[in-house]
Amino acid sequence: MLIVQKFGGTSVGNADRIKNVARRVVNKQKEGNQMVVVVSAMGDSTDDLIELSRQITSNPSPREMDMLLSTGEQVSIALLAMAIKSLGVDVISLTGPQAGIKTDPIYSKARIIDVNNSRMLKELEAGKIIIVAGFQGLNEFNDITTLGRGGSDTTAVVLAAALKADLCEIFTDVDGVYTTDPRLVPEASKLDSITYDEMLELAHLGAAVLHPRAVECAKLYSIPLHVRSSFNNNPGTIVKEESDMEKSMFVTGVTYNKNVAKLGIFGVPDQPGIAYMIFKMLADKNVNVDMIVQSSMREGINDISFTVAQDDLRKALETIEEIIKVVGAKGYTHDPHVAMVSVVGAGMTSNPGVAAMMFGALADEGINIDMIATSDIKISCIVTNNKAETAIKVLHKKFDLEKACCSKNCCA
Amino acid sequence: MLIVQKFGGTSVGNADRIKNVARRVVNKQKEGNQMVVVVSAMGDSTDDLIELSRQITSNPSPREMDMLLSTGEQVSIALLAMAIKSLGVDVISLTGPQAGIKTDPIYSKARIIDVNNSRMLKELEAGKIIIVAGFQGLNEFNDITTLGRGGSDTTAVVLAAALKADLCEIFTDVDGVYTTDPRLVPEASKLDSITYDEMLELAHLGAAVLHPRAVECAKLYSIPLHVRSSFNNNPGTIVKEESDMEKSMFVTGVTYNKNVAKLGIFGVPDQPGIAYMIFKMLADKNVNVDMIVQSSMREGINDISFTVAQDDLRKALETIEEIIKVVGAKGYTHDPHVAMVSVVGAGMTSNPGVAAMMFGALADEGINIDMIATSDIKISCIVTNNKAETAIKVLHKKFDLEKACCSKNCCA
Repeated sequence: MLIVQKFGGTSVGNADRIKNVARRVVNKQKEGNQMVVVVSAMGDSTDDLIELSRQITSNPSPREMDMLLSTGEQVSIALLAMAIKSLGVDVISLTGPQAGIKTDPIYSKARIIDVNNSRMLKELEAGKIIIVAGFQGLNEFNDITTLGRGGSDTTAVVLAAALKADLCEIFTDVDGVYTTDPRLVPEASKLDSITYDEMLELAHLGAAVLHPRAVECAKLYSIPLHVRSSFNNNPGTIVKEESDMEKSMFVTGVTYNKNVAKLGIFGVPDQPGIAYMIFKMLADKNVNVDMIVQSSMREGINDISFTVAQDDLRKALETIEEIIKVVGAKGYTHDPHVAMVSVVGAGMTSNPGVAAMMFGALADEGINIDMIATSDIKISCIVTNNKAETAIKVLHKKFDLEKACCSKNCCA
Repeated sequence: MLIVQKFGGTSVGNADRIKNVARRVVNKQKEGNQMVVVVSAMGDSTDDLIELSRQITSNPSPREMDMLLSTGEQVSIALLAMAIKSLGVDVISLTGPQAGIKTDPIYSKARIIDVNNSRMLKELEAGKIIIVAGFQGLNEFNDITTLGRGGSDTTAVVLAAALKADLCEIFTDVDGVYTTDPRLVPEASKLDSITYDEMLELAHLGAAVLHPRAVECAKLYSIPLHVRSSFNNNPGTIVKEESDMEKSMFVTGVTYNKNVAKLGIFGVPDQPGIAYMIFKMLADKNVNVDMIVQSSMREGINDISFTVAQDDLRKALETIEEIIKVVGAKGYTHDPHVAMVSVVGAGMTSNPGVAAMMFGALADEGINIDMIATSDIKISCIVTNNKAETAIKVLHKKFDLEKACCSKNCCA
């Protein structure tokens, strides 16, 4: 088998952990596999580099920031290659550019547009383990770019696709994907498998195990992902197209995101193109909008509510004054103290009543629902920020997630 | 003018110093110059990386070591470029590979074989200041190499040659080249200029201001070097073909090296090829031999003495047992406690009696001379290690070096 493995910053956080990873990779190779390993920068080293740049300027050039930050992964690959070599195994480290990773020209959040796999194929053919720097590539100007958040996960998945790997293992500091945050709900159970779409919803909702970009890529190229711990040998969670659990469970997990602020614009004229204008103006200011709800109660007049990350609230409020003038709205409200609570599951579409169960469970606890939005595999509610944890606990219980696949939560 | 400047690790040792360098470079540009700036890794960062690799293995792969160490300069160029950009000036950082520096394939001590200057010319034409990572290049396998000791100085000189620069300024933590070590002899005076050959001899003898490789390159391409302090604006020392001082002074400087051990092989058969065998065997073990003195007192039998760096003494002694067997010598001696004391000056060739003056001055102080070797512009003596400083003081005085160009030391 050709296996791509990815180890995050915690997994290579010091010399001993790097040696551990080296043994792990070598053992897997000795089982007869070809190995390509993607690593992140060691522990806090990226933060240290950012701090160094802050001592120089508060507004660093993005190109130079990428030049700076890409050194973090380069240090990791060199050290891991040394560790593997010292076990007597042939190995070579490759920077993102050397691995043939081509990106668009957008510094600090570049997207991979192509992979020239010839060097990697040559090194694999020579029997070498390949260590690739995650999070980085080369743009058309021959300059180093970084991929932004989730970059190393994305590198691993893209390389798995480019090399037609049989499996992509994502090693992290948790055992796999859980029905909800185990720190909050001790009864949370680890999922054996999950679909790409379910994982995407969970990832977008703040389950930090796997970045949505990487999941999107894996879905696009049908690369099965194995999310597992770098500190033990327990099986983790397989992310793939058809989850075994899909047919038996209608809710796979519950999750929440407290980094949410709510905004409402009221008295918006009900004309075509108004929503476009509002969200175009926000996008132009780089404000990422998450949930959008529009209700039109009165003839010719709409209220539009939406959520943004709390970090973006200041920018959003600056823009909203302008928006009101431009679209001729009556005014706006905002609430920085909300949270989004969601239940996710691919089985939901064929199981009516999930929404009602969710709303009922929240009502039983006296939790008021501020906004609701639904997709094929997700129902999200905006609630008061300080009720988020309670909401998750009651929902986890309501959908019997502590028992994995069983009784009430089983369909048909 | 097109000026290449080089700043060493101390000069970019922290954020404040980097900002200082930025201002300095920008000021020079504002005078109407095109600027290319070569920087080393910050302060002790290379040592930190080496320490990190030691935690992984005592015997790191040289390729991976270069992958690791090259990140040090990459951090510096990014930070310096940010600092310059924040002054509102257009700038771009380039790694050694991006600057078009091609090397031979020898990791950790690669030699530059070519420079493709097209990217640099393009960026200069666009009005940008270029910041280049010293000490690194790309080999024929598309892999990162480092240039070994003196690498950043060499990068600066080679870029000056490749860009046909008008001047190459080497910024360091001292004011220039002195007649001897000012910490030892307070009367030591700074030289306004010195020839390449004199600088070479001084550099080889341990004056750490400028690496011999860089001087050799500068001589080869006739690049005038200006060695000066990065902490003030004083003029430093110009290194060039025809020193103004050459015609007036026969001794330019005195210097010493205490990192010397002496070995002697006695009773060596006087046959062609014997010296070759001895020094080939030492070279094969990577022992660098400095001074070699052969005297044949008795018919058919030679004694051969030579010096090595103290770090190499153990390796040399291991080899010497074998050498004695192979060449059929009688035995060997060694002394780890010696030092080399030298006087250097291009005017020496046309001024007989310098050697006699030197030996006389040492004799007056009761300093015994163990070995003597001379070249066109240098006379070196091996003396007891603990007499080195005294020797330098008396020689500096004997040749009136505290008075720069004057009286006794003036020729014709």
